[in-house]
Amino acid sequence: MKFEHVRGFRDQYPEDYEPREVIFRTASKAARLFGYRHVDVPSVEYLDLYRVKSGDELVSQTFAFKDRGGREVTLIPEVTPSVVRMIASRKDLPRPVRWFSFPKVWRYEEPQSGRLREHFQFNADLFGAKGPAADAEVIGLAAHILDRLGLEGQYEVRVNNRKLMDSFLTGVGVKDIAGAFSVIDRFRKTSREEFLDGLEATGVDRSTAVSIAEVLSQRISFDDVEERVSSIMGRSETVTEIVRELREMRKLISCFTRSPVVMDLSIVRGLSYYTGTVFEAFDTAGELRAILGGGRYDSLGELLAGIDLPAVGFGMGDVVIEILMRRVGAWRVEKKEPKFYVCIASSMFQEEAFSVAAEIRKSGGSAVCEVSERSLSAQLKSASSEGCDFAVILGEREIEAGGVTIRDLASGEQVSVMRVDLPRYVAERAASLHGRGQGKIY
Amino acid sequence: MKFEHVRGFRDQYPEDYEPREVIFRTASKAARLFGYRHVDVPSVEYLDLYRVKSGDELVSQTFAFKDRGGREVTLIPEVTPSVVRMIASRKDLPRPVRWFSFPKVWRYEEPQSGRLREHFQFNADLFGAKGPAADAEVIGLAAHILDRLGLEGQYEVRVNNRKLMDSFLTGVGVKDIAGAFSVIDRFRKTSREEFLDGLEATGVDRSTAVSIAEVLSQRISFDDVEERVSSIMGRSETVTEIVRELREMRKLISCFTRSPVVMDLSIVRGLSYYTGTVFEAFDTAGELRAILGGGRYDSLGELLAGIDLPAVGFGMGDVVIEILMRRVGAWRVEKKEPKFYVCIASSMFQEEAFSVAAEIRKSGGSAVCEVSERSLSAQLKSASSEGCDFAVILGEREIEAGGVTIRDLASGEQVSVMRVDLPRYVAERAASLHGRGQGKIY
Repeated sequence: MKFEHVRGFRDQYPEDYEPREVIFRTASKAARLFGYRHVDVPSVEYLDLYRVKSGDELVSQTFAFKDRGGREVTLIPEVTPSVVRMIASRKDLPRPVRWFSFPKVWRYEEPQSGRLREHFQFNADLFGAKGPAADAEVIGLAAHILDRLGLEGQYEVRVNNRKLMDSFLTGVGVKDIAGAFSVIDRFRKTSREEFLDGLEATGVDRSTAVSIAEVLSQRISFDDVEERVSSIMGRSETVTEIVRELREMRKLISCFTRSPVVMDLSIVRGLSYYTGTVFEAFDTAGELRAILGGGRYDSLGELLAGIDLPAVGFGMGDVVIEILMRRVGAWRVEKKEPKFYVCIASSMFQEEAFSVAAEIRKSGGSAVCEVSERSLSAQLKSASSEGCDFAVILGEREIEAGGVTIRDLASGEQVSVMRVDLPRYVAERAASLHGRGQGKIY
Repeated sequence: MKFEHVRGFRDQYPEDYEPREVIFRTASKAARLFGYRHVDVPSVEYLDLYRVKSGDELVSQTFAFKDRGGREVTLIPEVTPSVVRMIASRKDLPRPVRWFSFPKVWRYEEPQSGRLREHFQFNADLFGAKGPAADAEVIGLAAHILDRLGLEGQYEVRVNNRKLMDSFLTGVGVKDIAGAFSVIDRFRKTSREEFLDGLEATGVDRSTAVSIAEVLSQRISFDDVEERVSSIMGRSETVTEIVRELREMRKLISCFTRSPVVMDLSIVRGLSYYTGTVFEAFDTAGELRAILGGGRYDSLGELLAGIDLPAVGFGMGDVVIEILMRRVGAWRVEKKEPKFYVCIASSMFQEEAFSVAAEIRKSGGSAVCEVSERSLSAQLKSASSEGCDFAVILGEREIEAGGVTIRDLASGEQVSVMRVDLPRYVAERAASLHGRGQGKIY
């Protein structure tokens, strides 16, 4: 009998998982320094929670099932509806509320797409604040995290506004705005013909569809967006005001990052609950899916729980960011302490070995302790394969003399150290590791 | 419309989640210092994986469902079968292998029991090593984690051995050993009568059942266990050898902890794959369910994947430990940096405020930055409710003078600090926090 993991899931061995912790730690620390607090949501929610406003595409791809009680539930596909539900159940929370979370999320797509059905997602949301400053803070936090992960210069943030697009599409005569948004969301993933056909299917005439495609395909700046949009739909005070706020937001984002922040009218986001600013970050080369994405969703509180709740946030999966971090050589574990392997010449010295290992750990090192009866050479091989820096050898001679032999596994040099001096020896190695800057956690 | 979380799940607000991180961080750091490496397992596995050897009770309580493809899968109820599967797929891994993980696990019990259907579980396993030293290391790691969480003296480890019980039960004439184990596993949760009836139902005669109940209910030491068992079943070389190893293991555990480690013949564990040492930790008062539990399972590799895989490990949920940590006052978040709230007299100073906040973060503080247009008193109220130590006020006067006003929110004292001096001011507050020992992470 041989078991495999379920398709679309992944077994994460240490070499897969440990570098991922750098993402968790960096994102969590950045969020904490911005005043965001850590929350956690259930992994299972009623499917109806997503039917309200997440959009048909998301609902059709949920990892949904009937529980033993026959209720329609799902492994959560995203965090936003859950945290809105949590805010709604706590009328006492002083606003604004800043929260982040780092759960697993799931989706059930067709297997041929090759995408994972389970991944980690970092989420941060700011509730109870409106305006460009709140939007800028959230985008700024997203960019700050990417910068701290060593990705500065490797990505750009593309920004748009749902209200702007709403005005523009209405202005050019589009009736089915939601339908048009879902076609536009696939703009960069489909051919021009497919895009035009898709828009026509929502009731847009061909020439309008062509105009829309033209506007979406051009690089546009925060300074010329108003003119560009007006040239097609005519002047609009709403557009003027939205663009003013967009420019204000753009200016404020530069307090957080030097990475490029550009205007991109094709960014509308797949989820249907966004109401204002929307944004996504992409690798500069434009080869990958979005690294992260988010926006303002001021009406979800009303829709889910009948409360007024201005909200802006973003989510960032761990899959695309892993690819980017590998590219720039940031996908690695930083050594936090010198690692020792405690070898014993005989199992008679097991107790002594455990004590030595405990001393090493107390003094700032990590220590793997031999627990089998194996040859010294087999133990030294383990020491290497475990990535240890030093082997600490306990033989009859060492025990008698009240000391240990320490072998530097890189240089092969050996020294004798008395047991009483061992803590200092380890502490010095730990200090020199940190001195070389390799022990830096953040 | 008002949504609730699914029954048996929990919304974790910051005050629920943040102290939990102390468990994650402490357990992960301890495991790393012992040379264990972090892995992660899928949240969904084929149900058959647990049918092999986890036991009927566990399988009947899994959060199982049919996926969209009609396959019988389940949210994982435990980690062990998954990590054994992972070891089996990687023939290249040098042994011994030391792994830990910290996933969510799920079970679907009857709602009236009031137990959670989702919780976090820390797991550590040592693969490829036999003997009392390996068992002692794993129990030692478990105890070390509890000690580091501030629970020294609040718990005891109860130890037993499946082979010993097997010999004993066989020796007194029990035929259905597995049946007897599952009755014994509920020994401390059921009445004497229920226990005796349960044993009788597995084919044990009344007088034998009474003898078994008597042995299980007595406090027994590592020194007298052999005699006690022999007095009922007669001398056995197997028992002598097992008890010798138990005593060796007990001696070695004392290299790791000063907490009590006792012999308890009623500890057999509910999972049916254990083959040797079994153990659980309980609060000293004996009021709660087990804090953690584990043991040796040398045949699971053979059963699941046809490989020889000596293995010993343990799992620890976060629910019982939370109750214990609350009792001893360890359920709290340690402050890692001084927290500032940046207030602005006008939204005209937003950009300046974001820059000040960024400077504070760079200098070792955390900073919440005002993003709304609110009165200064509303902002100061936010500063307090956010648990900030200092408010940094940016008004017209401050901007003109190139400085900020800093109010100590505990004392109410205010000082003026020039912008160029702000980094040093923050760094000094950060250093004094660490100096008071409140910034210690571990």
